[in-house]
Amino acid sequence: MSILVVGSVAFDDLKTPSGEANNVVGGAATYFALSASYFTDVNVVAVVGDDFGPAERKVFDGRSIDLTGLESAKGKTFRWGGEYSDDLTERTTLFTELGVFEGFQPVVPEDYKSSRLLFLANIHPDLQVDVMQQVPKPGLIGADTMNYWIERTPDELARMLKGIDVLVINDEEARQLAGVHNLVKAAAAIREMGPKTLVVKRGEYGVLCFREGERFATVSFPLETVVDPTGAGDSFAGGFMGYLASHDEITHESVRQAIIFGSVMGSFCVEDIGTGRLAALNRDEIHARYAAFKDLTDFAPV
Amino acid sequence: MSILVVGSVAFDDLKTPSGEANNVVGGAATYFALSASYFTDVNVVAVVGDDFGPAERKVFDGRSIDLTGLESAKGKTFRWGGEYSDDLTERTTLFTELGVFEGFQPVVPEDYKSSRLLFLANIHPDLQVDVMQQVPKPGLIGADTMNYWIERTPDELARMLKGIDVLVINDEEARQLAGVHNLVKAAAAIREMGPKTLVVKRGEYGVLCFREGERFATVSFPLETVVDPTGAGDSFAGGFMGYLASHDEITHESVRQAIIFGSVMGSFCVEDIGTGRLAALNRDEIHARYAAFKDLTDFAPV
Repeated sequence: MSILVVGSVAFDDLKTPSGEANNVVGGAATYFALSASYFTDVNVVAVVGDDFGPAERKVFDGRSIDLTGLESAKGKTFRWGGEYSDDLTERTTLFTELGVFEGFQPVVPEDYKSSRLLFLANIHPDLQVDVMQQVPKPGLIGADTMNYWIERTPDELARMLKGIDVLVINDEEARQLAGVHNLVKAAAAIREMGPKTLVVKRGEYGVLCFREGERFATVSFPLETVVDPTGAGDSFAGGFMGYLASHDEITHESVRQAIIFGSVMGSFCVEDIGTGRLAALNRDEIHARYAAFKDLTDFAPV
Repeated sequence: MSILVVGSVAFDDLKTPSGEANNVVGGAATYFALSASYFTDVNVVAVVGDDFGPAERKVFDGRSIDLTGLESAKGKTFRWGGEYSDDLTERTTLFTELGVFEGFQPVVPEDYKSSRLLFLANIHPDLQVDVMQQVPKPGLIGADTMNYWIERTPDELARMLKGIDVLVINDEEARQLAGVHNLVKAAAAIREMGPKTLVVKRGEYGVLCFREGERFATVSFPLETVVDPTGAGDSFAGGFMGYLASHDEITHESVRQAIIFGSVMGSFCVEDIGTGRLAALNRDEIHARYAAFKDLTDFAPV
């Protein structure tokens, strides 16, 4: 039982109403891997620069995360800076320095090719397709993308979408990709593009999932303190895919449970700056919040 | 088992992306009464002008709605015109003509004073207090309000809030009333103002409910076609309070069920312009959508 994730590992500079932090190890693959590692073995394919040493790797230490596929290239690690508005509803990108990420050509180590599941975090769709071709027969392929690729590389994105089973994107991206505002209609259109399952992340509002003959919807966990939304969506994806990787069968029921575990991981992620809370969890806390989700949303039939 | 609602009955001019309709009988008390009447007997206290005749009253005919308290005054019925953006996310008020509503002094008929529950729809908080004083001992008092009263009559609103059990408002109103963005914190602050139960409507996203030692959250029903959001919040309140009125005990469990029934009624309301869909429902459809809500949101414990 293992999952392979390809995506970014980065240094983030974060400005939030609760405080600032610089040079925090972040990136989609980082949040995804940390989150998924509570459920399954994680194999990481990513690139960092020569400024990313043993101290930086520590965030992955002592977990079921394999870094054989973390390439170290000459140059600087991808850097991103972001600032949140006081109510955390808006995020401004302060800078993006691609560094070694610009020339990234993912190479999947031989040992990774038997990974049960594959997740293509948000990178150029051509690279996502490339990785798919290197992994012969995963049980399930999930992917994320963003407005940048929807706008600039629609043909490449279309090819990627044809090859995957599950697309995990946010509601604005779903609307943009489908070209329609109504999410039920957007979901139908997107599922025609390839992925049989669409998972729509709605930030503080929750998650919608559309599959063949199946719809599932849930809320986000109400939190009194939200410190830093960075990585919440990737933590969701990590919990979601990680739980599926640890599960024998992928059924409507296990997908629903996976969405709740994803939501649990996203809710923990935002409680501290960067990966602070996500990295410090234990399984009891995760299961307690899953149970709290059940308590929060359950109601009796009539 | 009955509920008394005080609020507006109006003529609405509605411009939606799906079409327009003028002189539609609307207003908070109308949507509330129609919705609640599927669950309980409804007593209406409101005012209309002499332009509101038998033809207009027809929308209430053949239902468990008593109009003894619907005062007919000299002058024009309250009129409101609204236009929705293409994606229905924004609403512009085109005009508001208060008419007879301006001098409205609610008088509760003697027969209404034994109503089991009381709902104070969105009107001047002084009038809401006035009605509370006319109804000696309802089992539960619910109320709505809006940004207008939060901004302009905070002292009157504070008095009203002290007297009620349940406040049913939308998320932006909750934030404004509490002066804090985070809804968990806002809920705590508002519950200090009087209402022991706060129900927060989040439009297309769902509902949050905060009570002593209890939180409940649910989604909105995903719809492929949304025609007209007008009255959805009042239909929610009608289903919510109507179900509680029909129920012997008000418990955490019955409040959760009431929120789902409220959500069901709100989801039907938006499927047609004005009260079209809401007025044409039957109990089987309502119960089928309740069951669909359960299917949509249920997940297994782990």
